[in-house]
Amino acid sequence: MILDKDKRILIVGLGLLGGSYARALHRQGFYVSAITLDDDSINYALKHNIIDKGTTDIDEDLIACADLVIFAVYPHIFIDWIRQNGHLLREGTIITDVTGVKSSIVNEIQSMLKPGVEFIAAHPMAGREVYGVENSDDAIFKGANYIVVPTEKNTPWAIEICKQLGETLGFADISELSPERHDEMIAFLSQLTHCIAISLMCSNDAPDLARYTGDSFRDLTRIANINDDMWSELFLANQTALLHQMDKYRESFEMLYSYIKSGNREQIRNMMRLSSVRRREFDKKV
Amino acid sequence: MILDKDKRILIVGLGLLGGSYARALHRQGFYVSAITLDDDSINYALKHNIIDKGTTDIDEDLIACADLVIFAVYPHIFIDWIRQNGHLLREGTIITDVTGVKSSIVNEIQSMLKPGVEFIAAHPMAGREVYGVENSDDAIFKGANYIVVPTEKNTPWAIEICKQLGETLGFADISELSPERHDEMIAFLSQLTHCIAISLMCSNDAPDLARYTGDSFRDLTRIANINDDMWSELFLANQTALLHQMDKYRESFEMLYSYIKSGNREQIRNMMRLSSVRRREFDKKV
Repeated sequence: MILDKDKRILIVGLGLLGGSYARALHRQGFYVSAITLDDDSINYALKHNIIDKGTTDIDEDLIACADLVIFAVYPHIFIDWIRQNGHLLREGTIITDVTGVKSSIVNEIQSMLKPGVEFIAAHPMAGREVYGVENSDDAIFKGANYIVVPTEKNTPWAIEICKQLGETLGFADISELSPERHDEMIAFLSQLTHCIAISLMCSNDAPDLARYTGDSFRDLTRIANINDDMWSELFLANQTALLHQMDKYRESFEMLYSYIKSGNREQIRNMMRLSSVRRREFDKKV
Repeated sequence: MILDKDKRILIVGLGLLGGSYARALHRQGFYVSAITLDDDSINYALKHNIIDKGTTDIDEDLIACADLVIFAVYPHIFIDWIRQNGHLLREGTIITDVTGVKSSIVNEIQSMLKPGVEFIAAHPMAGREVYGVENSDDAIFKGANYIVVPTEKNTPWAIEICKQLGETLGFADISELSPERHDEMIAFLSQLTHCIAISLMCSNDAPDLARYTGDSFRDLTRIANINDDMWSELFLANQTALLHQMDKYRESFEMLYSYIKSGNREQIRNMMRLSSVRRREFDKKV
């Protein structure tokens, strides 16, 4: 199977990401249908020529005739959907997703699917701080990373289709990570940073200090304004990896704390030098 | 005393900040002299018409005839300088500074000065991540905060002169804080955020993850690339306030950790909602 234009694509969950996928794929000539929870999203998408067809029902024909099904929903909704409707997927169908955590869902989904239906997981590292198909925009994929997350159950052609999807959507970098490595990366680079920002904002109620706020504080806490419904689910779905990264970070923080407390300037400087070297490394990789 | 154009201004320490002060003041017609450590800085400043006169010596005449002396040096250099040369300051002279911590230096400096010489502390919240008079630029004061930090020893006219200096330099907001409140604010808004960024970069040596880094991680760790000489001195000069803010932040971080560990989603969401509300408050105050 190649992701050519005669493939029929079904998107389940027509929100910001699902809508952005639909825009990119429909514009390139794919037949794109959608199943989502509310009529307004379907009406909006039809009116703005984002999809070819859409419904809020579990339309068995629509599901059966899809070659590729993309799930752009919260993890627990994805799992529930497959449990209830997975039997409607036709043999030969490939399904993929946009979920930000992997270990906790990939094996479960793969084990629920009937033979001949293959789930290849993917994480498009793109988004905006607004919601809904009304705000969808496939420009968010430009310059962004697209990570394919295969397991040993995946076939080479499903992995290839998934990569072709990433390219078709316009991502700048397509890579592969195992579910475990992906979740460790997400725990460190994304979830831990959100935990830090949340903790910092919760630690001090001093609105009068806002007057003196500089760029460093603003930059660090920007992500403390957070979608609590989605992120609390993602935190708990990646609990083990996140706690591990929090443990490692705490060790480092406590080390710095003890050096400041004991006035050990040389060790404080050593940590600063290490952090400077490492941070400059990240700049180079832009 | 009013900060009018016949006042003679001496800048001690002709680096990025001292140089930027000199540029702004000299252009507006003040007589600006400078004492600094190396000849290159003086030569550069004279050649580029940033100062009227400069020396690397302790020039007794230059010091005695200054109406306003601005110290733009590290805290320990400021204290050493006053200890060694404070007797050269003429009665009626006002001195001020640019130091990022206050409690640990203000009382010490004030107690060393002879009667008739007054130190009024100030913190210009402006800077760049480069050094030296060659990089000085008074555009960094635009839109920035200038905080006057008086004690009960200060006179109303010295406080007024200090505010006039902030206005003359082009700062957007001139305010007043006590040394204790200033240091608490700096500990929370600036030093703690640097501690967090340093700890985060030191906690995980995973350069291969840089490929997946998003904006939130980059924004949060930008300040982990740090001048270890200056910041280690500032951390220790504000040890008590910084440790207090680290304690409060740790409490908040450990609370979030325990909720994630026990899978208490509702409490995680409560913290996220609180952080979101507070962070939006900071946006409004821009």
